[in-house]
Amino acid sequence: MPTILLLNGPNLNLLGVREPELYGRTTLAEIEARLKALAQESGVELEYLQSNHEGELIDALHRARGRCVGCILNPGGLTHTSVALRDAIAGTGLPVIEVHLTNPHAREPFRQVSFVSSVAAGTISGFGALGYELALRAGLALWVKRPGRRGGR
Amino acid sequence: MPTILLLNGPNLNLLGVREPELYGRTTLAEIEARLKALAQESGVELEYLQSNHEGELIDALHRARGRCVGCILNPGGLTHTSVALRDAIAGTGLPVIEVHLTNPHAREPFRQVSFVSSVAAGTISGFGALGYELALRAGLALWVKRPGRRGGR
Amino acid sequence: MPTILLLNGPNLNLLGVREPELYGRTTLAEIEARLKALAQESGVELEYLQSNHEGELIDALHRARGRCVGCILNPGGLTHTSVALRDAIAGTGLPVIEVHLTNPHAREPFRQVSFVSSVAAGTISGFGALGYELALRAGLALWVKRPGRRGGR
Amino acid sequence: MPTILLLNGPNLNLLGVREPELYGRTTLAEIEARLKALAQESGVELEYLQSNHEGELIDALHRARGRCVGCILNPGGLTHTSVALRDAIAGTGLPVIEVHLTNPHAREPFRQVSFVSSVAAGTISGFGALGYELALRAGLALWVKRPGRRGGR
Amino acid sequence: MPTILLLNGPNLNLLGVREPELYGRTTLAEIEARLKALAQESGVELEYLQSNHEGELIDALHRARGRCVGCILNPGGLTHTSVALRDAIAGTGLPVIEVHLTNPHAREPFRQVSFVSSVAAGTISGFGALGYELALRAGLALWVKRPGRRGGR
Amino acid sequence: MPTILLLNGPNLNLLGVREPELYGRTTLAEIEARLKALAQESGVELEYLQSNHEGELIDALHRARGRCVGCILNPGGLTHTSVALRDAIAGTGLPVIEVHLTNPHAREPFRQVSFVSSVAAGTISGFGALGYELALRAGLALWVKRPGRRGGR
Amino acid sequence: MPTILLLNGPNLNLLGVREPELYGRTTLAEIEARLKALAQESGVELEYLQSNHEGELIDALHRARGRCVGCILNPGGLTHTSVALRDAIAGTGLPVIEVHLTNPHAREPFRQVSFVSSVAAGTISGFGALGYELALRAGLALWVKRPGRRGGR
Amino acid sequence: MPTILLLNGPNLNLLGVREPELYGRTTLAEIEARLKALAQESGVELEYLQSNHEGELIDALHRARGRCVGCILNPGGLTHTSVALRDAIAGTGLPVIEVHLTNPHAREPFRQVSFVSSVAAGTISGFGALGYELALRAGLALWVKRPGRRGGR
Amino acid sequence: MPTILLLNGPNLNLLGVREPELYGRTTLAEIEARLKALAQESGVELEYLQSNHEGELIDALHRARGRCVGCILNPGGLTHTSVALRDAIAGTGLPVIEVHLTNPHAREPFRQVSFVSSVAAGTISGFGALGYELALRAGLALWVKRPGRRGGR
Amino acid sequence: MPTILLLNGPNLNLLGVREPELYGRTTLAEIEARLKALAQESGVELEYLQSNHEGELIDALHRARGRCVGCILNPGGLTHTSVALRDAIAGTGLPVIEVHLTNPHAREPFRQVSFVSSVAAGTISGFGALGYELALRAGLALWVKRPGRRGGR
Amino acid sequence: MPTILLLNGPNLNLLGVREPELYGRTTLAEIEARLKALAQESGVELEYLQSNHEGELIDALHRARGRCVGCILNPGGLTHTSVALRDAIAGTGLPVIEVHLTNPHAREPFRQVSFVSSVAAGTISGFGALGYELALRAGLALWVKRPGRRGGR
Amino acid sequence: MPTILLLNGPNLNLLGVREPELYGRTTLAEIEARLKALAQESGVELEYLQSNHEGELIDALHRARGRCVGCILNPGGLTHTSVALRDAIAGTGLPVIEVHLTNPHAREPFRQVSFVSSVAAGTISGFGALGYELALRAGLALWVKRPGRRGGR
Repeated sequence: MPTILLLNGPNLNLLGVREPELYGRTTLAEIEARLKALAQESGVELEYLQSNHEGELIDALHRARGRCVGCILNPGGLTHTSVALRDAIAGTGLPVIEVHLTNPHAREPFRQVSFVSSVAAGTISGFGALGYELALRAGLALWVKRPGRRGGR
Repeated sequence: MPTILLLNGPNLNLLGVREPELYGRTTLAEIEARLKALAQESGVELEYLQSNHEGELIDALHRARGRCVGCILNPGGLTHTSVALRDAIAGTGLPVIEVHLTNPHAREPFRQVSFVSSVAAGTISGFGALGYELALRAGLALWVKRPGRRGGR
Repeated sequence: MPTILLLNGPNLNLLGVREPELYGRTTLAEIEARLKALAQESGVELEYLQSNHEGELIDALHRARGRCVGCILNPGGLTHTSVALRDAIAGTGLPVIEVHLTNPHAREPFRQVSFVSSVAAGTISGFGALGYELALRAGLALWVKRPGRRGGR
Repeated sequence: MPTILLLNGPNLNLLGVREPELYGRTTLAEIEARLKALAQESGVELEYLQSNHEGELIDALHRARGRCVGCILNPGGLTHTSVALRDAIAGTGLPVIEVHLTNPHAREPFRQVSFVSSVAAGTISGFGALGYELALRAGLALWVKRPGRRGGR
Repeated sequence: MPTILLLNGPNLNLLGVREPELYGRTTLAEIEARLKALAQESGVELEYLQSNHEGELIDALHRARGRCVGCILNPGGLTHTSVALRDAIAGTGLPVIEVHLTNPHAREPFRQVSFVSSVAAGTISGFGALGYELALRAGLALWVKRPGRRGGR
Repeated sequence: MPTILLLNGPNLNLLGVREPELYGRTTLAEIEARLKALAQESGVELEYLQSNHEGELIDALHRARGRCVGCILNPGGLTHTSVALRDAIAGTGLPVIEVHLTNPHAREPFRQVSFVSSVAAGTISGFGALGYELALRAGLALWVKRPGRRGGR
Repeated sequence: MPTILLLNGPNLNLLGVREPELYGRTTLAEIEARLKALAQESGVELEYLQSNHEGELIDALHRARGRCVGCILNPGGLTHTSVALRDAIAGTGLPVIEVHLTNPHAREPFRQVSFVSSVAAGTISGFGALGYELALRAGLALWVKRPGRRGGR
Repeated sequence: MPTILLLNGPNLNLLGVREPELYGRTTLAEIEARLKALAQESGVELEYLQSNHEGELIDALHRARGRCVGCILNPGGLTHTSVALRDAIAGTGLPVIEVHLTNPHAREPFRQVSFVSSVAAGTISGFGALGYELALRAGLALWVKRPGRRGGR
Repeated sequence: MPTILLLNGPNLNLLGVREPELYGRTTLAEIEARLKALAQESGVELEYLQSNHEGELIDALHRARGRCVGCILNPGGLTHTSVALRDAIAGTGLPVIEVHLTNPHAREPFRQVSFVSSVAAGTISGFGALGYELALRAGLALWVKRPGRRGGR
Repeated sequence: MPTILLLNGPNLNLLGVREPELYGRTTLAEIEARLKALAQESGVELEYLQSNHEGELIDALHRARGRCVGCILNPGGLTHTSVALRDAIAGTGLPVIEVHLTNPHAREPFRQVSFVSSVAAGTISGFGALGYELALRAGLALWVKRPGRRGGR
Repeated sequence: MPTILLLNGPNLNLLGVREPELYGRTTLAEIEARLKALAQESGVELEYLQSNHEGELIDALHRARGRCVGCILNPGGLTHTSVALRDAIAGTGLPVIEVHLTNPHAREPFRQVSFVSSVAAGTISGFGALGYELALRAGLALWVKRPGRRGGR
Repeated sequence: MPTILLLNGPNLNLLGVREPELYGRTTLAEIEARLKALAQESGVELEYLQSNHEGELIDALHRARGRCVGCILNPGGLTHTSVALRDAIAGTGLPVIEVHLTNPHAREPFRQVSFVSSVAAGTISGFGALGYELALRAGLALWVKRPGRRGGR
């Protein structure tokens, strides 16, 4: 069964707990559970990891190489500062969909630089928890194209 | 029946006809037809307009005010240059989801400025024609939340 | 009878209707009517046009050449992006007074560039609807200096 | 009787005496006299001060706090360099209308930064001595709204 | 008979009428007539259009696709601001020669950015009306290379 | 008993050991001991952690949420590069006082950017080891205001 | 008896009177009195001066040379604009501790440049009136180190 | 007989020999010969020089002063770096047409600065060897206008 | 007898007293005395003023208008920040020679901007006290050209 | 026996496995083995570590202080973002030779900033796996200068 | 016998003579002799040239084309300014290894731009005279790979 | 007899011949003759060279090392572009006084960068031919201080 990796970076464990006016009230555990269920409906395994450590995220991408069909990645604050994470995406060749809960263009100027975007297949931002679901749908369409699927939609 | 506006800016009428290696082979007419069908399945009317004229796009946003629940907008090259289009979104208060076929971060530097992003509800980029479909799903979730929907998903 | 052109750019038709906390509650029609009346008191004809199309604004400036004594122009969002509008002012030689409802320096950074200012006779900004009236008074003083007026003030 | 302060910064004492091709031939004394007369017609007292000293201008703004209804300010060269003057405006809460004789956008690049604009109620520039008169009219309308006035216009 | 499109952007209808010290005294009509004659001597049809509307210029480029062998384009002020026009050139694949009457490097800084140049086959600037004629000669050589021509020159 | 967290980032374990001409001869252990003693005099518990790992610092801030009244943080080189650390401060809502041993403005240009400053309650820099003591006093005053204290000062 | 100079720049005389939500309700006179008392407890004389005039602040620094052991300086808006004040600090060689009531990094971009910081011994910002007290403690420790003090703390 | 100078800068001796995919297969000798022939048909002498030495190009411009009617100049890499070459053009007053084989706007960013353009009569770029021929035609039209020529074209 | 004004700005009263390794050991009084003597040898009166107050320097320039033939000005730190001083030079029309003791290009970046240079007749920097003497010689040559002088040198 | 540390940062464990067209086909294990052998020929011990964690690299530099004679460091993507790594090099005083497999100047702009270079003894880039060998030779010459060696070369 | 060119740019003839604290005491003649000897041990001829003239360096690169297998180049100050030198490397296609005696990142900002790096095979900087030797070893490995060499090392 | 070198860069041979409104009517030969005479009055030999070749100017500085006491240098356009010339000054250690005929700050922006200034003893600009004479006087004072001279002034 094809596997998709859901990878969340620094501070996303606070999701739904802190700053709900900015990030909403859905917790990361709820998102992970919902996406796992959705994936399984499509015959796809979903693995997930959240870490506040850049190195662990890079390690996870390396481990996923050859084992996962793609990765849904919200790099959190590392989005704007980590060339190493970007190099891990390019270096492993793992297809990545970048997700942001909020619209970085409506926030501080330094959030408008993304080292991840130019090596990502696509980016979805501003939709809160819904964005992960959109990303999964996109990932299923891009990485798990089953026979008859196009016609069936 | 709630209505969603699908608005496409300059040169998107060339979609599927020119530069398929960059933008894919699906034509704009096919996208419009598919989204109209998808919307109707959800009990939503979809209107669409493509124009190479900034003024016509602004006029369309003005006309949609109070009449549509939201707008899916691919502003084409105007993304990076039109303050007037941005002001139309802010001025009408119409909720807008911004779509780009390609990943602007992987292209010329001037494509990394978007006057639309910071007034958009969310942005989806890099998924080609699939991006419009994701945008419609997001719009349905955000603007047409029907009773029982959450549970039904 | 000398004629003054009152020209309003993109989204100014929304004046008084949307975002009143930013732009006030006076509609553009009310402003146009009031300025027409004020102009006629001074024996001056006032023509007006609002358009969301850059090209129509340029066309209007071209038509006013040699026929109007001056133009009161609020270019809206085109202020910050349109070299073509600037060239129309310089190219027609029509004296222009630039008006902005709000203070651009108290808003987004991109609003602090004006392609119109350096070819305008003067600029009035931040006074809301009152700014148009000040502009008309300035235009009357600069373009319609009648005998005895200086003494009469 | 409400009082308005007319405050002129460095080198404006040279007005009408030097560089008339740039600033016109009207002296500052003539402007002050004319505005005093105009104000009195509207039942308003006008006080004025010109100084080449930043500190004296700040002191004057402090003294005017609670005693004047507003201030017409031409900060001269301090416009582009004085954060202290800006802080004096914000700190006293005195409403200020900023006046410039010439159009700063048609001059040196460093004249396009104004520390005063974003804390001013509005800005009038490019109209020479006439600009002060427009500012007074704006100030009367904004700060000395008398009963029946709106209807009477 | 092969067709070349001569496309002129905003304000070029003022050519020969206003600012002759900057742009010369030849009118656009004279240029269009002269180029039409020159083209016909080479067995080539010349079509021309001038518009102050960005959208009409884009529409014209779209219509010319597959019907014209190339386009001589003076985008006027849109040169420096229109990504949409640039995308129209790239999107239609129509070969374009960019012409400017004056030398943009000897004018304002914002005229030194051209969104058109990097998608144009070549650029000719600073030669006034003569530049169009040089562009036509270049277009004939590049797009209408007839047998025996090289030898015949 | 209220608890304050003393958090030191990369390379601060070298304090007092290397580059004493820049950072002084007091070791980090001595600073931690002295602050612990000082805190206890005020009836406050002081916890401390030093780590060269960004992720561990973020984890520590997360753990301190709801358990500590505030944090004294010297982020070391991460000051200038870590958006994730900044997001941890904003996301946990933990009050933070930022300390730097040296004056960043007298060093390399890249040290003049601080991602932490704008989410910190205050910043103390340039006082060497003394700065931690000042920070503790500030923290006690801000976070542990005991009855009668104000009067007692 | 050693003397410390407390020097406050433009608009700090408004402290506690205006914008209390930004700067608090303690007046400058209260701060000066409290610091004088605190200094005297440590056997140190405290002199103070507030001026809105850059020149007077520079004169005061010159007079303090050789007579004071150090200076606590809040340069107000001059922080960001006065090279002359900076040169006075460097030129007199007087040790200076820079104080800011608010966190400049959380305000306008132009407040993030400080001409004073790189010639100051240290900087304390964001603590409101408390910051002056921290600065005095730092000054006492740095400039008035008495025998037995280290042990006695 | 009027003389035109054809001046080629560094590395243009490699023309037609190296990087033909970028610069074409025509050698510099062929271009020089062809232009000499074309010039002679118009009764004009053509002199030419290629040098990899900035100083020799400047010397050549000095020698041409008063002896040549104009100069066709391809400054090669010096285009982007030589103020001295620019000063030689301005200082000698020799009319210069600037030629570039490729479109500098489609290459590296540093190629978009030209110190020569703003002192050149006009610029032709992107046409390969054909550009020299266009430049010669422009030079003949501008510098060698013979009686009856206009009519004869 | 023609008069030359020697004007020194902030902190130049410290000359010869502080930082001799940077500015030398000659005091300002010695320089003023020496220049007075040198001027008198040439039949010229020399007046001098030093002030730490921008406003006093501007006042002095205003007073010198029409009374002095020129001014030797070392603006100290105001060089880099005072548009008002620059406007005083331009506004009075007084010829000014700018002097700096040290080479601003070998110091901090912010010292490389001079608001005075572009309105000064000439600039002399880096020669310490000797620079004033060179400036006086230049002033005598430029402003006090006596008959027979050229030949007599 | 003197020891040299070979330290490799994020993603260098992928060496030889992914993107061979960019980085070559030699694996990191092969490089480590070859350098160990080469070092031993010179009587030098070589230790090596690769980590994707910034903190572990900093820890390794700290541990090497006083125990190793120098370090050959390829910081991978951290080169361009890690001030903490730079501070670790400066703080430990360990001599470091920086190695990059590819030429950063021929890649993305953000790769042209190196926080490591200015604290490194030297830099070798663009030679692929060969670069490590050159670095070892340089390290041996700089850090393990044996008697008679200079003469023996 | 394969030939390698050792090319040194402006001021490198001063090597070992001036500024030894910056560049060391080895003269250029000693370096050239040592490299010639080393090269001959590997059966390679080494030619060398030093010139202060950009044009002579370009001429030398042109002459080496097809005759040398590669070039070791220290462009001196031209590194940071010469597009023509860069074009000569790209245009001749000669493989080049760039050498710098000092670490440009530890010097002035303008030394951090290299026009040569992005067309060089690799760069070695900061090792003084040793850098040339490393470059020669790299050149031998890259350009003169003899059979059995890998094994024999 | 001590020798001073007068070195003039590109295009200064045109002095007095071209653009007299900018550079005056005195020829370089006249300046060289006058300075030679003035130098000899002070018992100093003056040598001079003008060249349009950067390399020749560098060679001349190298030759002057140890043979001349100092150099008066007008680098012409190389001022703004030549790092190699700057390195020649720093590398030879020859004291240099930089002269410019015009005020670079009143001309194009690119003339405001000088690679020479920060390695020059001092700079004199804006005085036309008179500047050379001032520079010679400065050079005599700095480099040829004879016994009794100070007293004699």
